[in-house]
Amino acid sequence: MRAQADAGANIAFIKYWGVRDEALNLPLNDSISMTLDAARTTTAVEFSPRLADDVLTINDKPASEAALRRVSRHLDLVRERAGVTWRARVRSRNTFPMGAGVASSAAAFAALTAAAAAALRLELDGAELSRLARRGSGSAARSVYGGYVWWHAGTDDTSSFAELLAPPEHWDVRDVVAVVATAEKAVSSAEGHRLAHTSPFLRARLAQTQRLLPCVREAVLRRELALLGPCIEADALAMHFVMMSSRPPLFYWAPETLALIKAVHLWREAGLAVYFTIDAGPNVHLICEAADVEQVIARVQALEYVREIIVAGPGPGIVLQEPA
Amino acid sequence: MRAQADAGANIAFIKYWGVRDEALNLPLNDSISMTLDAARTTTAVEFSPRLADDVLTINDKPASEAALRRVSRHLDLVRERAGVTWRARVRSRNTFPMGAGVASSAAAFAALTAAAAAALRLELDGAELSRLARRGSGSAARSVYGGYVWWHAGTDDTSSFAELLAPPEHWDVRDVVAVVATAEKAVSSAEGHRLAHTSPFLRARLAQTQRLLPCVREAVLRRELALLGPCIEADALAMHFVMMSSRPPLFYWAPETLALIKAVHLWREAGLAVYFTIDAGPNVHLICEAADVEQVIARVQALEYVREIIVAGPGPGIVLQEPA
Repeated sequence: MRAQADAGANIAFIKYWGVRDEALNLPLNDSISMTLDAARTTTAVEFSPRLADDVLTINDKPASEAALRRVSRHLDLVRERAGVTWRARVRSRNTFPMGAGVASSAAAFAALTAAAAAALRLELDGAELSRLARRGSGSAARSVYGGYVWWHAGTDDTSSFAELLAPPEHWDVRDVVAVVATAEKAVSSAEGHRLAHTSPFLRARLAQTQRLLPCVREAVLRRELALLGPCIEADALAMHFVMMSSRPPLFYWAPETLALIKAVHLWREAGLAVYFTIDAGPNVHLICEAADVEQVIARVQALEYVREIIVAGPGPGIVLQEPA
Repeated sequence: MRAQADAGANIAFIKYWGVRDEALNLPLNDSISMTLDAARTTTAVEFSPRLADDVLTINDKPASEAALRRVSRHLDLVRERAGVTWRARVRSRNTFPMGAGVASSAAAFAALTAAAAAALRLELDGAELSRLARRGSGSAARSVYGGYVWWHAGTDDTSSFAELLAPPEHWDVRDVVAVVATAEKAVSSAEGHRLAHTSPFLRARLAQTQRLLPCVREAVLRRELALLGPCIEADALAMHFVMMSSRPPLFYWAPETLALIKAVHLWREAGLAVYFTIDAGPNVHLICEAADVEQVIARVQALEYVREIIVAGPGPGIVLQEPA
């Protein structure tokens, strides 16, 4: 009763911010992302009748109580589905570059879901895996697939799942993450999703995502960065407007975040095709095509306030592996 | 046929951003401001049949062609009203602290309007002066009055004018301007007002100002900084959201602007009653009561990225003077 799976983090082109249903992680809006090749989690799960409790190690160290509880609750969903009560030993390893530039929970819960389901011989298709992964962490719904992914917000557990837009080899886009701060978030994403409802700009952002989603889809399908870029910048800004106008306000931007936004504007005026997106944190993701990535990296390296640079391309979704 | 008038700049608690009618400077929303004592313009106007053209000096230097044209157009309105065609010699002097921390056109056009009207013996009440000053520069409509002022957006020339909420001695609020950059704006306010219509967040901001205006009015009348502060911060942020989401986007914030926003949050958490507002530029206005101003100044002085500090309190509106 054991299995191992690998999954990647993803960078959202249209972000998920705000929940309709917290228990089910139903988002307020559809989102679109690229699954990354350079920020991945490999998770081995072994169910056993001899275990009194679930056991979790992350990078070979015992996990925190909070992490264990969250994983146990997620395993309960998989166990319930399989009609099994055995506890599990979970070993999770991140190939994540250090620096907290990329959110890890999407990769973690996609890998955990796939490994647990495989260990319990559940035969789930992509949509079913996506729904189940979503319960652990909303954006894990997207990491089930590789390449370019659309997560349908839906209105209930059945209708909220991701689907593949295009596989990783469709378009060689790069995400150059300029890490400017590595501090822990003062406010968790979960709490932030809850606060979204208090922003007077939430509705305007949701209306905007409805206009941007088909553009981003088209841009991906036609491999048009000049169409994709303005959409992802507009959506990232809009998400941060909602955050900054929540009560209490959430300011994820650092001064360096704004400096990078302005640097991207200048680079683009100088002819370099690069666009930014920003998750719930201060780091800036610079999106460009593979042909321009060396130029983008060189410019970012010249900025003394950038602490670290992570480069990722489109990667595969869940990869089932032989347990070690 | 000569007169001299003095008027102050103002800091808006609820901002004016976006025009309904460009020729008449009719704003999209009502605004509320405090007229300042420390950033003033004194203007002497002398009409004479011997002048072939209007002549303008600013701080004793001949003004630019563009400035002269704008002043001439404004004088035409006053001349038309008085049935006079004589040209005028205009001498304008700013007691503005250097650093471009405060917008000067409101004080300039309030003083010019009052001096020109007095020179031509036009007997105008406050509302009439406010309407006329508005034609020169929108926010000049507010600088006609001292202390705390509400500008009714209106829907035509007659209905768009300011009224006094409370005189300067009503409440000793201070505006500590933290100057972080003195560069010329890349995009003028006039162009920005035009671009406001392209933002998908304009309507949400206008709806928010409708909720904030009565709160700011109450806060001023009751002298309650704890009620005023959150309203002015919310409105300043909202205006910048509209700016940043215009097409093309307007990023008036500098990295230091964001650093100051975060500093204000920390100072407030530490018990200091200080709030921020930000005009169409990178500098941050720290609003506090007179009793706390020394503490606020000390904290701002400790920030190595602040280039200059300007301190202003509530000042009088138009003051007619004996021509020198």
